[in-house]
Amino acid sequence: MKVFSVFFFLLATVVAASHGSQDSSDSSCLSWRFAVEANNIRGWKTVPKECEKYVGHYMLGYQYRKDSKAVTDEAWRYVNSLKLPRDGRNIWIFDVDETSISHVPFFSKHGFGTEPINKTLAYEWVNKSKAPALPESLELYRKLLSLGIKVVFLTGRDEEWRKVSATNLKNVGYHTWEQLILRASSYPTNATVESFKSNEKRKLEEIYGYRIIGNIGDQWADIQGIHRGNRTFKLPNPMYYAP
Amino acid sequence: MKVFSVFFFLLATVVAASHGSQDSSDSSCLSWRFAVEANNIRGWKTVPKECEKYVGHYMLGYQYRKDSKAVTDEAWRYVNSLKLPRDGRNIWIFDVDETSISHVPFFSKHGFGTEPINKTLAYEWVNKSKAPALPESLELYRKLLSLGIKVVFLTGRDEEWRKVSATNLKNVGYHTWEQLILRASSYPTNATVESFKSNEKRKLEEIYGYRIIGNIGDQWADIQGIHRGNRTFKLPNPMYYAP
Repeated sequence: MKVFSVFFFLLATVVAASHGSQDSSDSSCLSWRFAVEANNIRGWKTVPKECEKYVGHYMLGYQYRKDSKAVTDEAWRYVNSLKLPRDGRNIWIFDVDETSISHVPFFSKHGFGTEPINKTLAYEWVNKSKAPALPESLELYRKLLSLGIKVVFLTGRDEEWRKVSATNLKNVGYHTWEQLILRASSYPTNATVESFKSNEKRKLEEIYGYRIIGNIGDQWADIQGIHRGNRTFKLPNPMYYAP
Repeated sequence: MKVFSVFFFLLATVVAASHGSQDSSDSSCLSWRFAVEANNIRGWKTVPKECEKYVGHYMLGYQYRKDSKAVTDEAWRYVNSLKLPRDGRNIWIFDVDETSISHVPFFSKHGFGTEPINKTLAYEWVNKSKAPALPESLELYRKLLSLGIKVVFLTGRDEEWRKVSATNLKNVGYHTWEQLILRASSYPTNATVESFKSNEKRKLEEIYGYRIIGNIGDQWADIQGIHRGNRTFKLPNPMYYAP
């Protein structure tokens, strides 16, 4: 059936010829980004060196904004279609880093994820509480509050960062929350982000009696595992991976 | 903290100015595609009309090939790193439509997913057994066989399509398999693809004693649920959604 085996090759050639040549490195980095965002490539340590420019343009440009908005718009469409019991038990989980606030100002000075994170410099940056809000997430946050849904921030940051985290969130417009959950020092150090977050979500539902209506994060570890919520939303993040 | 709230707007403006204007519809369709592939937009019926050209170029061009290869390359890296017991129990699950074989020749004549699928015409097309192989999936299939891993095809197609499906798979190079599982007519008609496939995967592990090493499909329904396998791989498909 040779006629079929050459089908794709011919089509691709014809289309490429009629649309001019693509930047080969950009299209490879787009493929890498797709593979990362759809949870195909896991456990990666740094962004491929050849994708530094691509990821930089993406994070600083309109596409990252548009991609984020496509996700938060869908979250809003979903939640707005629900008939929720008005019993004060409805919550929405927000991750913090690269979901509620952004470290692009930091990563833009450090190769957009192509370099291993320098912890000293990163802690210095976080300690300033100056990370800007993700505009689309902030808008979703405000809309959820207007529906009477309570917000819980759930972050893998250590408990010692509570004050810094709360200050940063408030600084950029996240003025209120039901809970701000950080990782207690008593929590096993070898536990993954996914197991820590799953366990905290289980407690929210089983102990506190909340109903997790939605759950948004930039890492698959934020939105997988048990008690993940009725719907989950994955924001883009091609800069780093949390196991 | 106004200085932060305008951060992204300014950056986006500067970057856009220095890189020329983007095709706004293409970038919106790329956002839609990202939202679909990362499982944010679910249960959609047709591709947005304004994305017909975008999806057509994508499916016929190099990007679809590259995106598929990024996924199958990662699958190969993963499986090649394993030390598998040589007991004949290792299997890899392949979905059929848009994973092993492609219906681009059909969809290219029907608006690339922007039109509701005409079942009469679609059945006519499938009945011909002439869908070409996805080249990257066929290559992965061959490499898995060379490692001694057995392949199971698991499809939501009805049992009555067994002969047509087997003929098509063999025609394009999938010469052998451990099982080809279709949806028996006794299976509840209101059951989702995810529940049907999860149940079949459970049987493969619990009744037949296989070990699902990997699982590849173009729909989230292929790779979610129970007994999904040690690793799952999501191929792109911006043409249709299986609930």
